[in-house]
Amino acid sequence: MARIEFEKKVLSENDRLAAAIRKDLSERKIFCINLVSSPGSGKTSLLERSLGVLGKEMALGLIAGDVQTENDADRLKAAGGTMVRPIVTGGACHLDARMVTDALKDMPLERLDLLFIENVGNLVCPSSYDLGEDMKVVVISTTEGDDKPLKYPGMFRRSSLMIVNKIDLLGHSEFQLARVKENARTINGDLETIELSCRTGEGTRRWYDWLRQRVSQKRV
Amino acid sequence: MARIEFEKKVLSENDRLAAAIRKDLSERKIFCINLVSSPGSGKTSLLERSLGVLGKEMALGLIAGDVQTENDADRLKAAGGTMVRPIVTGGACHLDARMVTDALKDMPLERLDLLFIENVGNLVCPSSYDLGEDMKVVVISTTEGDDKPLKYPGMFRRSSLMIVNKIDLLGHSEFQLARVKENARTINGDLETIELSCRTGEGTRRWYDWLRQRVSQKRV
Repeated sequence: MARIEFEKKVLSENDRLAAAIRKDLSERKIFCINLVSSPGSGKTSLLERSLGVLGKEMALGLIAGDVQTENDADRLKAAGGTMVRPIVTGGACHLDARMVTDALKDMPLERLDLLFIENVGNLVCPSSYDLGEDMKVVVISTTEGDDKPLKYPGMFRRSSLMIVNKIDLLGHSEFQLARVKENARTINGDLETIELSCRTGEGTRRWYDWLRQRVSQKRV
Repeated sequence: MARIEFEKKVLSENDRLAAAIRKDLSERKIFCINLVSSPGSGKTSLLERSLGVLGKEMALGLIAGDVQTENDADRLKAAGGTMVRPIVTGGACHLDARMVTDALKDMPLERLDLLFIENVGNLVCPSSYDLGEDMKVVVISTTEGDDKPLKYPGMFRRSSLMIVNKIDLLGHSEFQLARVKENARTINGDLETIELSCRTGEGTRRWYDWLRQRVSQKRV
């Protein structure tokens, strides 16, 4: 019981900070994505590609969270042009709104159009922490099994878009696209899906268009 | 500060329960593995194969943890012969020693040789919770990227064996076996490695032999 009370308190403090982030980003008309997935689903590869393409059209910011190392932030800095801030959680299994608040202090918010937050690779804990984003986008890869929406329902329920990555590896496992979509719909009837391969580039155009549309809607 | 104190208290209660489990299993000469990995690395597939082969030689028990659904437990019951107990954590991101204590009450410990605990798919949180096992075994698949030991060091530091699964997919990504081993050694110089494919069966014999050896050592 003490534990539940304690967790409620932590989450309500987080919600307060997340609301402040959301208000600030909204006033500045910055569209914000909280990118979540298992370890190794391809969040960083997806961002590398996206920064390369969209960085030529709009001003991008990125907060890259890792339990340890700044590898992802380094990879993404190499992708060029984007304002990148690493967060090393030092063991914590998720980003929280306090970490994001601190990272944002350092960013040129007055000129950003689109802000990505790359969460820690974890399909459980990050689902409970609102970071002030407009939408959560969950990445799942075809090598992980098509039952993941059923086994980690919290994340799929709270996401607006599911990206199915590594479609170049379809046929190398029992994973079926139709089944992962069906399982996802059971959990969240409003969840959109985009299938792509960060390796070959197949399908990525739909993702860029999806982002462009959200960014222009936000500007209105 | 309050938060850290609170977490310390939870962990010390967990350690107390884990020590009791370890003592009980040790007196009964049951070898116990805590199997950890990202979602979709292949823990359940590995167990399906292992139960099929080892179930003919020794008495196996299995505790299968999932955030939601009893899918894994159902798959493993279908693999036959083994005493399977599901734990549905209802949102919790890891198993803890209390859940294992409760699951064990229901198992015929007097006749088990080997007990598997399949943890929740999560490379972060389960590393902090001792379940009374003899060893943690971490599964990583070749589709997840060879930097995982560096990014999730806690889990690789506390594991005795790293299983590299999905070697049938080597060459379909930038993943390199030599590099994942080198990264793992940086974190934990004592970590053993076994490479295999649950899909094709390649390499699984070494895993069975590894288990057989541990089980006979425990019996002495």
